[in-house]
Amino acid sequence: MLIVMASDAGPDDVRRVCDAVRELGYEAHPIPGRTRVAIGITGNQGPIDPASVAALPGVIELIPVTRPYKLTSREMQPEDTLVRVGQLEIGGPQLAVIAGPCSVETLGQTLETARAVAAAGAGILRGGAFKPRTSPYTFQGLGAEGLEILRRARELTGLPVVTEAVDGESFDLVERAADVIQIGARNMQNYSLLRRAGRASKPILLKRSVSGTLLELLMAAEYILAAGNRDVILCERGIRAFSDYSRYTLDLSIVPELKRITHLPVLVDPSHAAGRRELVAPLARAAVAAGADGIMVEVHPTPRAALSDAAQSLDLPAFAALMDELRAIAPAVRRVIEVRA
Amino acid sequence: MLIVMASDAGPDDVRRVCDAVRELGYEAHPIPGRTRVAIGITGNQGPIDPASVAALPGVIELIPVTRPYKLTSREMQPEDTLVRVGQLEIGGPQLAVIAGPCSVETLGQTLETARAVAAAGAGILRGGAFKPRTSPYTFQGLGAEGLEILRRARELTGLPVVTEAVDGESFDLVERAADVIQIGARNMQNYSLLRRAGRASKPILLKRSVSGTLLELLMAAEYILAAGNRDVILCERGIRAFSDYSRYTLDLSIVPELKRITHLPVLVDPSHAAGRRELVAPLARAAVAAGADGIMVEVHPTPRAALSDAAQSLDLPAFAALMDELRAIAPAVRRVIEVRA
Amino acid sequence: MLIVMASDAGPDDVRRVCDAVRELGYEAHPIPGRTRVAIGITGNQGPIDPASVAALPGVIELIPVTRPYKLTSREMQPEDTLVRVGQLEIGGPQLAVIAGPCSVETLGQTLETARAVAAAGAGILRGGAFKPRTSPYTFQGLGAEGLEILRRARELTGLPVVTEAVDGESFDLVERAADVIQIGARNMQNYSLLRRAGRASKPILLKRSVSGTLLELLMAAEYILAAGNRDVILCERGIRAFSDYSRYTLDLSIVPELKRITHLPVLVDPSHAAGRRELVAPLARAAVAAGADGIMVEVHPTPRAALSDAAQSLDLPAFAALMDELRAIAPAVRRVIEVRA
Amino acid sequence: MLIVMASDAGPDDVRRVCDAVRELGYEAHPIPGRTRVAIGITGNQGPIDPASVAALPGVIELIPVTRPYKLTSREMQPEDTLVRVGQLEIGGPQLAVIAGPCSVETLGQTLETARAVAAAGAGILRGGAFKPRTSPYTFQGLGAEGLEILRRARELTGLPVVTEAVDGESFDLVERAADVIQIGARNMQNYSLLRRAGRASKPILLKRSVSGTLLELLMAAEYILAAGNRDVILCERGIRAFSDYSRYTLDLSIVPELKRITHLPVLVDPSHAAGRRELVAPLARAAVAAGADGIMVEVHPTPRAALSDAAQSLDLPAFAALMDELRAIAPAVRRVIEVRA
Repeated sequence: MLIVMASDAGPDDVRRVCDAVRELGYEAHPIPGRTRVAIGITGNQGPIDPASVAALPGVIELIPVTRPYKLTSREMQPEDTLVRVGQLEIGGPQLAVIAGPCSVETLGQTLETARAVAAAGAGILRGGAFKPRTSPYTFQGLGAEGLEILRRARELTGLPVVTEAVDGESFDLVERAADVIQIGARNMQNYSLLRRAGRASKPILLKRSVSGTLLELLMAAEYILAAGNRDVILCERGIRAFSDYSRYTLDLSIVPELKRITHLPVLVDPSHAAGRRELVAPLARAAVAAGADGIMVEVHPTPRAALSDAAQSLDLPAFAALMDELRAIAPAVRRVIEVRA
Repeated sequence: MLIVMASDAGPDDVRRVCDAVRELGYEAHPIPGRTRVAIGITGNQGPIDPASVAALPGVIELIPVTRPYKLTSREMQPEDTLVRVGQLEIGGPQLAVIAGPCSVETLGQTLETARAVAAAGAGILRGGAFKPRTSPYTFQGLGAEGLEILRRARELTGLPVVTEAVDGESFDLVERAADVIQIGARNMQNYSLLRRAGRASKPILLKRSVSGTLLELLMAAEYILAAGNRDVILCERGIRAFSDYSRYTLDLSIVPELKRITHLPVLVDPSHAAGRRELVAPLARAAVAAGADGIMVEVHPTPRAALSDAAQSLDLPAFAALMDELRAIAPAVRRVIEVRA
Repeated sequence: MLIVMASDAGPDDVRRVCDAVRELGYEAHPIPGRTRVAIGITGNQGPIDPASVAALPGVIELIPVTRPYKLTSREMQPEDTLVRVGQLEIGGPQLAVIAGPCSVETLGQTLETARAVAAAGAGILRGGAFKPRTSPYTFQGLGAEGLEILRRARELTGLPVVTEAVDGESFDLVERAADVIQIGARNMQNYSLLRRAGRASKPILLKRSVSGTLLELLMAAEYILAAGNRDVILCERGIRAFSDYSRYTLDLSIVPELKRITHLPVLVDPSHAAGRRELVAPLARAAVAAGADGIMVEVHPTPRAALSDAAQSLDLPAFAALMDELRAIAPAVRRVIEVRA
Repeated sequence: MLIVMASDAGPDDVRRVCDAVRELGYEAHPIPGRTRVAIGITGNQGPIDPASVAALPGVIELIPVTRPYKLTSREMQPEDTLVRVGQLEIGGPQLAVIAGPCSVETLGQTLETARAVAAAGAGILRGGAFKPRTSPYTFQGLGAEGLEILRRARELTGLPVVTEAVDGESFDLVERAADVIQIGARNMQNYSLLRRAGRASKPILLKRSVSGTLLELLMAAEYILAAGNRDVILCERGIRAFSDYSRYTLDLSIVPELKRITHLPVLVDPSHAAGRRELVAPLARAAVAAGADGIMVEVHPTPRAALSDAAQSLDLPAFAALMDELRAIAPAVRRVIEVRA
């Protein structure tokens, strides 16, 4: 924390602030400048936030310095976290490609998609059973029945499965059925769910909320790591900005920045960001080129008949074409996409 | 839904789209314009979103028309919903003033604050027992013990109490202890919690998330109303924009717009929006002037020693001064603040 | 500037950074903390930005401290700047109410509006002659002929006039015709125009751009003051956020913050922010309650027939009703609206 | 335009709106739905915006349908515009790589950079002579002297040159000296400058403003095309969102969308978007992968000593390394980067 004093603050003002800081259990380091004094604060974290001195006379600004993330920080763990899912090591040289329908609808639809995406080179199947929907009047997912379909699809195709948990109850079910448990963007700051994820026996795919800052995303991951689960995969899926041609604004700048300051793997979901099929392939290519550890894409055998997210699902040929493009880009960023044997 | 066709789309393209729309169970109404055709879609809501026709040749844009909110809409219920809390009718001519500490810390602190805010004219006491905090390493609230303190404070002062529930478990406890149950901004789209709120026996104070559109806020309320609880109070508390002088950007424009399209009461929380004490009183005055049904303000006897949100809490004299200002503004918007007898 | 070092940066890294800072002509003040070292930088502004040390090993972050605004800062001039326009002193206890049509269309329309707004209590007439329009195909204003109409309206009503200049050429004309020269939001960072405004003999009304930070707004004003013109009036008119119910998002939080850090007067234009008539009066009331020095509102005798901004213009009775509301709110913020004698 | 009527609007309300629409010179097409009537509006553009009917009883919403861009639209011109600059055809299969210092400082620095970027494969030299700077107190560029240096650099290296014009006066000078004239983000809606650009004899590089919607960007280009200059190159360089790890948020989603709806070439400037060297290469790669027609990057021989934008400039080896990466990605999107012979 740095405290900036007004240019007309006198020595008494500075002394009073330093005393207050010390009373709270921190150390104060005045730095006299040409037009004003700044005061650096260091020391153990006390019970009380040093920001509470903001109200003292002469203080004009507080600038936080220390970053509150610890376990997620690369300063703490310099080497990359690799999250093993089936044959894949997410965060390593092999790109993770997660593909599948927005919602699990039938076994037939799920199997058809799973086989096609596996053939095209995807390593993990996605599919929603518990669907957080903006409207209470739209399809809310098949729930436990959907999980059963995913289990069958995994048995029959060998593809590991990722699906979303939305509350404590669904979490228990998903934990048994899935290989990776997704926490959706709307629940990024649902701390009860994060704590539960921290006690899970499976890796967690944590999606950034549409208003989540980098700090908030890392602190959400920190909840999971602090509760004992180190296998956390981050996922950018668009922020809310003023765009009207994409549902959200995919923020690829966060990819290299996350890779720099955390050891956790970073995926990108261009489908939910774009909300429109036409933009998915260009953004998926861009994500890989920007250095993401993988992508997560919605694929449906007949997008027009999908019960949710019809407008943003790729059909099977479009997904296969995208995979070919990614295969061409991957070497440029020292990555590979291996087709499953 | 309105479908906009490309200027070079031919009659066959238009016919194909109309057929597809009718197959989905809707009616299609072509509107020939000078440079292009648009196609209006009406009819029962089918199982499949008409947006699925977006991929047909010649379609360049889909424009949603129908608004999906029903129970929250003023078209459905023209007269204002009045939510009774103790002596107050929130949504009526009397302004609801909710004040108290960010976190319940001790009985002494809570009682001192409750008495002071009641004396100044507040009608409801706020105080957090279950605190959603960005960091897992900061104070997370006293939990059940905090609820017990609030219960005592209510007994001793007569002030009704609002406090936040963050998951199913805390909801059960809060429902027994509080007069109004708050769903915080981070949980605005936690649909499990919203459904639980819909089965509650107490009014719900639903805060807008920092990225919540007007539609998303109303649909969140719709979850609660659809599940049976009609006593929902909406609360604006700042959106995430690019401001660096306030924690969020208080969006007062939503107040008159909400009052226009929904019958539910609308409050404003300037404390969380601003994040800085200096801005709270001006924004509270502005909220009342803009037509809000009341405000929710953080007040602490000694803000510097607060365990959370120290920088944004008003002290007791500042709150009393604000109440005097609001008392002067209220008549201009045909409102009253009555001091409790 | 504060330089934050990595937790594993050694004494050599710190020394190297301090040396580099000193080479650039600044002083370096290392502050040893528990987990890392921070380095304060003070001293004369050198020709080279100290940020250039960012690339040295061990540096993880740079935090700017000094604020670059000088002449606009309240630290430099603690007392309020009062800008005299006709009988009004903008920035003083009397609220500045600027009202009139978006575009000057005819002398009749302008005179009718001017007389009505003056009768209702407005102190200054607004009206656009040079109109910056998003589309090259829409009405671009009457230009010099519009200025002539404004001149006549001033003669016949005694109301001072504010109108916009959009480039060097129009500036010369506007400077002769108007009492206050407006720099519009789109030109907030048109530095040629700002320098020209700095040489003007009339006060400047500087509108915040829709993406302007507080710093950028003050630096834009700084250009004008630095070039010699101290009579600058700032005006908030909405920022671009994700709202879809108002054209921009009126950011009233900036009003008290600006009043705190600059001595310049601060107005609010709710008409352009809202883009919709229904929101104008509530936001105008809120602006006054938040502490603005005045408001700027679009008024048209027959909004439906307006050549621009039809949807957001108040008609004459609506403006008069708003003035009555403002008259009731003003005393609560120690302001007055005097009807011109 | 589509007019949405309230669910309780009667036949009289609908008739009144239709009459008003027809009076304004448009046609009205009522579309009866299950819960409400919508009214489509078609016909010649009248002098008055049909939005003016918004105030009639029963109208609850207006939805614009027609897009106002014409000359920039791919509906008008389906084939890509190719802008010839020296040997390059921007918009064709060869990627345009524009590189060079933020500001022209000396002939030596400019020549050294020009030679190095040309050797690495860049096709165009960039360098600012007239610099729009946020602060009046920082380096404002060398002006005419800077243009002279660019002219010499072109002579000696054969590289075409792009540099920015900031007002009418500098435009005349830049038009004589440069091969491509840049209109910067801050001037995207400086319509005087856009009209001047429309009369220029050289191609225009038009940067998107940080708050510019797709519509506003296209309408800005429309000003230039409508005034007679068809050689316009669009450039995305970051929007203002809430990011704190990049200066702006690079919005790559706009690239495929622009390519879809306009025939003009689309470049991306990752340097200004990121504001930090570490993010430039990942975002440049992503831009190419997303389908941009080229990139524009800041390069400086000794970034630490740069007079502006020190933190975001690549040094010469970093730029050469980036070019190698782009050379690997280009074929995946059917592009080439040819080293100049």
